Amino acid sequence: MTSTRPDHGYPEIAWAGWGDPADAAPLSAALRGLLAQALGVHREGTPVPALDAVRPSPSTLPDAARSALVAAVGAEHVREDDDARLRHTRGRSTPDLLRLREGDVGDAPDAVVLPDTHDQVLAVLAACAAERVAVVPFGGGTSVVGGLEPQREGFAAVIALDLRRMDQLVAVDSISRTVTLEPGLRGPDAEALVAEHGFTIGHHPQSFLWATIGGFAAARSSGQASAGYGRFDEIVVGLRVATPTGTLDLGRAPKSAAGPDLRQLVLGSEGAFGVITGVTVAVQPQPAERVYDGWRFPSFAEGTAALRRLVQDGPRPTVLRLSDEVETALNLARPDEVGQDGASGGVLAIVGFEGTSANVGERRAAAEAVLRELGGTPDADAGPAWEHGRYKGPYLRDALLDAGALVETLETTTFWSNLPALYQAVGDALRESLSAQGTPPVVLAHVSHVYPTGASLYFTVACAQLDDPLAQWRRAKAAANDAIVATGGSISHHHGVGIDHREALAREIGPLGVALLRAAKDAVDPTGILNPGVLVAPAP
Amino acid sequence: MTSTRPDHGYPEIAWAGWGDPADAAPLSAALRGLLAQALGVHREGTPVPALDAVRPSPSTLPDAARSALVAAVGAEHVREDDDARLRHTRGRSTPDLLRLREGDVGDAPDAVVLPDTHDQVLAVLAACAAERVAVVPFGGGTSVVGGLEPQREGFAAVIALDLRRMDQLVAVDSISRTVTLEPGLRGPDAEALVAEHGFTIGHHPQSFLWATIGGFAAARSSGQASAGYGRFDEIVVGLRVATPTGTLDLGRAPKSAAGPDLRQLVLGSEGAFGVITGVTVAVQPQPAERVYDGWRFPSFAEGTAALRRLVQDGPRPTVLRLSDEVETALNLARPDEVGQDGASGGVLAIVGFEGTSANVGERRAAAEAVLRELGGTPDADAGPAWEHGRYKGPYLRDALLDAGALVETLETTTFWSNLPALYQAVGDALRESLSAQGTPPVVLAHVSHVYPTGASLYFTVACAQLDDPLAQWRRAKAAANDAIVATGGSISHHHGVGIDHREALAREIGPLGVALLRAAKDAVDPTGILNPGVLVAPAP
Repeated sequence: MTSTRPDHGYPEIAWAGWGDPADAAPLSAALRGLLAQALGVHREGTPVPALDAVRPSPSTLPDAARSALVAAVGAEHVREDDDARLRHTRGRSTPDLLRLREGDVGDAPDAVVLPDTHDQVLAVLAACAAERVAVVPFGGGTSVVGGLEPQREGFAAVIALDLRRMDQLVAVDSISRTVTLEPGLRGPDAEALVAEHGFTIGHHPQSFLWATIGGFAAARSSGQASAGYGRFDEIVVGLRVATPTGTLDLGRAPKSAAGPDLRQLVLGSEGAFGVITGVTVAVQPQPAERVYDGWRFPSFAEGTAALRRLVQDGPRPTVLRLSDEVETALNLARPDEVGQDGASGGVLAIVGFEGTSANVGERRAAAEAVLRELGGTPDADAGPAWEHGRYKGPYLRDALLDAGALVETLETTTFWSNLPALYQAVGDALRESLSAQGTPPVVLAHVSHVYPTGASLYFTVACAQLDDPLAQWRRAKAAANDAIVATGGSISHHHGVGIDHREALAREIGPLGVALLRAAKDAVDPTGILNPGVLVAPAP
Repeated sequence: MTSTRPDHGYPEIAWAGWGDPADAAPLSAALRGLLAQALGVHREGTPVPALDAVRPSPSTLPDAARSALVAAVGAEHVREDDDARLRHTRGRSTPDLLRLREGDVGDAPDAVVLPDTHDQVLAVLAACAAERVAVVPFGGGTSVVGGLEPQREGFAAVIALDLRRMDQLVAVDSISRTVTLEPGLRGPDAEALVAEHGFTIGHHPQSFLWATIGGFAAARSSGQASAGYGRFDEIVVGLRVATPTGTLDLGRAPKSAAGPDLRQLVLGSEGAFGVITGVTVAVQPQPAERVYDGWRFPSFAEGTAALRRLVQDGPRPTVLRLSDEVETALNLARPDEVGQDGASGGVLAIVGFEGTSANVGERRAAAEAVLRELGGTPDADAGPAWEHGRYKGPYLRDALLDAGALVETLETTTFWSNLPALYQAVGDALRESLSAQGTPPVVLAHVSHVYPTGASLYFTVACAQLDDPLAQWRRAKAAANDAIVATGGSISHHHGVGIDHREALAREIGPLGVALLRAAKDAVDPTGILNPGVLVAPAP
């Protein structure tokens, strides 16, 4: 017998930080010294308050809505207790965390509703449409773009629709190599269920341990092994979606010419067009071998050229990423050792291969020849170090915020020829904005997702906190967004739009692009209850 | 200096048949015998009338519209002569051709308008929206699904918007390996321009010689080398679209999480959402080597298993196709020799490789091992024969229609596990419908596009014509559509929707899917002038 559900409970993520609080790591002395010397961090940040020291406003859920929700999912699955409400307040961007640290829980939902089936989701949406209650679909709660920050105006209340009970493996098709999953499955649980059939999904974003299948689809997630397995929007072959006006079942074939690909309209819709209740993904055989090699290059430009060569001419690795000079020097690939410069200078690439033993051996050897030809030298420690730390980065942010640093990440993407200009422009915008505010930052970046025609850029920025770190970051973020739009990048490679990128998206796709999104939303959500304000501005 | 435009004029396709009339091939005596013996074809079909023997109804283009169109594109580019109007009447499905043979040119546009720039297209659309004139974007005119058959009700007139003058190579980005092309470029001209920069697009559908870049994008075309280069909707990375309400510029990066992928809403919109005026495609280095090998398998099931193995586990060929037993026996891969059974039985696969010499050598050798393991035996003649005949199939249809046979193709797609059921159901539907009409057909099929999770099925059906071959085919086609929808296939893998598949599409994507398409159309085309009736039914 194989399992259809995880064999364990659903761990709660830290209420105002990352992951499992037990895994939080203190800052090394070296890093503390670096913060003081290099960034002028001289006082602690606001600490995370205890969960029971914070109280949300009283729930405004109307009685009629409560009754309808109870009728839809059962009384025990309509939670209005403070604990549930606070644990569904906002996502995990630095602004989200800064506000939670200040005790600002103004975005707490009035209730948390936990449906178990597609039909229950339909019933919840119908009830909410009738009672003017906004609905925020909630998976892992790891949005870093304001995706869980609904605009309340015009609604009687807001509920978080937590999909954790929808955690079944629904179907396995071993011939077609597809698996149908419910949306509430977290990354590791989905992988474990699929592994029982000899398969892997291969989707491993940094949020893997906490984020969910539905969230991956809704936000167009991209994993660390995207070069090998594809982005999640490429892995998805079928979608079931519950909307206030009914059900969408999409994906009768891998690819089709039966009109526009409506799956691609749902992927990236971030809960604003419907609630994803089923996801059919392409799966691969479990790889017999996984190796991640480190390679050093003299410069980011040379390293980038090597990545481009591999993805354009092959052999194509499964994992392919490259830190710039600053990120390499700071050794962020080893969060446990940040600040201990074990680096020999230059830039560090991670080149990973997964597959059968023979296939990995062939591709790895061929890649080695290419990388050496292009100036690369092996770094034996870097690959295992990256693998060890691949999901740990966000814990470091909590410790840095504790210590009084302001730290955040952002990302973008463009075609290869424009990558150097975009890299420069976004870095400059962050440095100029924060320096002008009196807090010169350190800005580091890496390429972590590659395509034959282009790549992503992922920036990490850190500086000393001002008295109002939220306003401080908002200015810097606005400067970065402006630089991305002006330099021809896309406002997000894999974090999504949420509320934080909505204005930049409007500039990216133009008024007609916005009109198309607005029209799609109005067609399936005429009362506008779905994640209001996310992706597109509420109807005026 | 490299060229930015083709160095030759724009050849006209046969007005009521396929391609260049000079290339039309007469039927072999063997095939004539087969038609009589096997299908009971005993009298000639209606011949194609001379172009000057047919007259369309007088143009209903209002004077105000004519003036506005002349102002937009110049008087010489607004053609109302019979020749131009007749040459833009319908597409190239068998029903289209049967009606043209009968002299039914009821769908002739009232004028043919030939813009030269994006801004001219915008001006034409604005004029037509103001004057209630329907607009049929026209590329190569090779639609086989009623994509050029507008519904006139509610409009003062209909124009064909012929994009042949928009035939420039606009930009080459050798670093990103992308090329931006205007929509009116035909396949060979686009390839020739791109080849001057050392690249290939690699998109070679059977319509390659006549169809256009804009048409490939609008209809989600898929080429014979899709296993290697991808479908056209995978090759496209950027789109410029003119609509009655303005311009859409899409594609700032290969992939993005900046909301839904709106490119995928335009791809497959078949002129109903806008006129594609610029297409940026990913290109590959010109392959140094191209080899196409023939392989025999004992049965379609065994051959299908071999295709699935190659696309799932590699090595992945560039071209991968498999004829079923009947198609193999009829030897349709060699249209010059149809009916001369040189086959040794079983089924025939074509396994092609394109790339560098070393890469082709490695993949070919590895594939050979897999194919032998799975029961394949090489057929030395079949590969070159397929290459020789790869664009010739449609000429055969004209000759068969002349001879009194009814012949048409249709296609579908599904996941691998459902492929046998779909193959059986569609074949049965065609055989049953036509046998019940007293004309038992021959039905042949092949798989020509493969994915890790599924594949396409392409059917060719031939029988004797009844007195009303149009009605005869419509009944058979309806039966096939019903079988596709009922068996879980998609109504089209690469032909598109047009008017012929609109009802089946509605069943495939459901009322909410139709509502999404309708909403997108209304957002960009509020007066509904764009290809009315194609893809979605006109607003009631």
